[in-house]
Amino acid sequence: MKYIKKSLENRTPYYSKMIEDGIILNANESAFKTPKKIMDLIKAELDNVDLRRYPDTDNLYIRSRIAKSYNIDITNVTCGVGSDQLLDCIFRSLIEDEYILACNPTFSMYKEYASYTNGKFIDIDFLDGFIYDVKTIKESIKKYNPKLIIVCSPNNPTGSIMERSDLEEIIKLTNGVVLLDEAYSEFDKSNYDLAIKYDNVIVLKTFSKAYALAGIRLGYAISSVDLIDTLNVVKPPYNLSTISQIAAGIAIENKDLYKDQIAEIVKLKDELYNDLLKLGLKPTKSYSNFIFLKFSDKVYENLLKNKIYIRKLMYNNEFWYRINTGTKEENKVLIEKIKEAL
Amino acid sequence: MKYIKKSLENRTPYYSKMIEDGIILNANESAFKTPKKIMDLIKAELDNVDLRRYPDTDNLYIRSRIAKSYNIDITNVTCGVGSDQLLDCIFRSLIEDEYILACNPTFSMYKEYASYTNGKFIDIDFLDGFIYDVKTIKESIKKYNPKLIIVCSPNNPTGSIMERSDLEEIIKLTNGVVLLDEAYSEFDKSNYDLAIKYDNVIVLKTFSKAYALAGIRLGYAISSVDLIDTLNVVKPPYNLSTISQIAAGIAIENKDLYKDQIAEIVKLKDELYNDLLKLGLKPTKSYSNFIFLKFSDKVYENLLKNKIYIRKLMYNNEFWYRINTGTKEENKVLIEKIKEAL
Repeated sequence: MKYIKKSLENRTPYYSKMIEDGIILNANESAFKTPKKIMDLIKAELDNVDLRRYPDTDNLYIRSRIAKSYNIDITNVTCGVGSDQLLDCIFRSLIEDEYILACNPTFSMYKEYASYTNGKFIDIDFLDGFIYDVKTIKESIKKYNPKLIIVCSPNNPTGSIMERSDLEEIIKLTNGVVLLDEAYSEFDKSNYDLAIKYDNVIVLKTFSKAYALAGIRLGYAISSVDLIDTLNVVKPPYNLSTISQIAAGIAIENKDLYKDQIAEIVKLKDELYNDLLKLGLKPTKSYSNFIFLKFSDKVYENLLKNKIYIRKLMYNNEFWYRINTGTKEENKVLIEKIKEAL
Repeated sequence: MKYIKKSLENRTPYYSKMIEDGIILNANESAFKTPKKIMDLIKAELDNVDLRRYPDTDNLYIRSRIAKSYNIDITNVTCGVGSDQLLDCIFRSLIEDEYILACNPTFSMYKEYASYTNGKFIDIDFLDGFIYDVKTIKESIKKYNPKLIIVCSPNNPTGSIMERSDLEEIIKLTNGVVLLDEAYSEFDKSNYDLAIKYDNVIVLKTFSKAYALAGIRLGYAISSVDLIDTLNVVKPPYNLSTISQIAAGIAIENKDLYKDQIAEIVKLKDELYNDLLKLGLKPTKSYSNFIFLKFSDKVYENLLKNKIYIRKLMYNNEFWYRINTGTKEENKVLIEKIKEAL
């Protein structure tokens, strides 16, 4: 690339083939579609919207509905194009060249967005069974004084959670900010209230997983007014389309419509876990809608051949796989095709 | 803000009151709503979409339709959350600490996004009547060798255009990249083909103005494959919602539906220009859907009092105003209320 700036000259553009056909279990999306009632309400609302106008730059429509749903103040909420944009805002606004503490393996985009800063990562390994190593995390906080501590809970890709009491100890111990990424917390439980109780916590949440709305690209942060202001310094104006705000607003106002669907996803994931155990595999205990495990390349190849798409990840120089639960029927085919190649 | 990084500590978050009531002429939006046929097609397409899925990260749906509309290759197109996100990508991928040449006054977001780099602006004044000073631009290119030259044509907020022959001379003269911002070119004419003819030109376009779709937040860049790749290095994955892609795709496939509407907007803007002249004011000749002029604060206050919203800008230590054309009825009220306070 002739004109790219020097510090980026070793990078390549990211392109990715869109998969539309087959059993898609590679993006931790919902096993079920957006409820029809939600889609009908979105369509109906389009009659009332004047798309010629710019959206409200402060995203009041969706922020007020999120705030109401949690019974918190609107000034404790900001929204982004997926939680990705908020991650970018967090690194852009907080990090110059300080330490960032995160566990390994975790969501790969943390390092991607941090790469535009001079932040230095401290990677903490998990204990056996991908249990958070809270003791080492606390020692590292004392040793390195990180500006940012990232806890993804439930963690992508392992499904691990950090206990509330551990979270709270870390929050009190650090002089920096704790980012608690709760993209998957609807499948377990949320500790969002810690972001209101303490002034140094940012909780990230999304409509892409349990709300079955990855297509609208809307995530949100709950935090102290001071940290929300900090994120809003670098948040681009008019970042959210009017329609995405409407869709998310309708979803959160009607969150009861998701209750059975979410319970069913958790049940399907537990059944999938048990079926994998029965095959003699060692799936990781997961508090989310996906499972992390290791098997031979032959299994992966057989799944691909049968158009079953799962996520291949490199961890400790080995290939591991992350599979989100599909429907009962999809999981049945998945298990068959894994078995076939074991 | 307790945790904000040092280099940003003097910044403040940007909040802005949403205006929903009155005559809104301050954001260069379309005087007319999105055509009903377009809205109906968008709604119908929602029946076919699975919003639980992430959008295609490569935005093939909308890029292919844009490419087809211009009869260019899809690899010459990339898309962003408004052209704003592409501006951010341009500065992020091209600029370290080099010179950036732009004219003054122009779109304020150039400096905003550039502020996250160490780029240094060279501001070139316009000639009388806000005519592009091509001679000085060329001399400055030779003198400073800027990495980026920004030409907004028609220019926001003046409405000025740069002649094609001048553009082409600048493109050939520079060793850097020419950013030709054509957000308003549907109201005049486009020189997008220069971005295909030369390898150092990025043309930015948007659905927010003539297409009456500011609410979907979708802009696009036409450029050489090499520069599109460069922008895609820093473009966040999954940046565009599925619905915004669908809406823009439907709009560009049905662009004939906008023909009369755009012609009417140009006519209304010309009539507004003449009416302002008749009042003894000196509006700037504009090739866009808005007009730039100076009048007393008293006029502005009277408009505000009557809920007529226009854009107030500081230029050369004086207040100037940018007014986009409204409908015939809105312009009539506007002229009355200006007259009242002259």
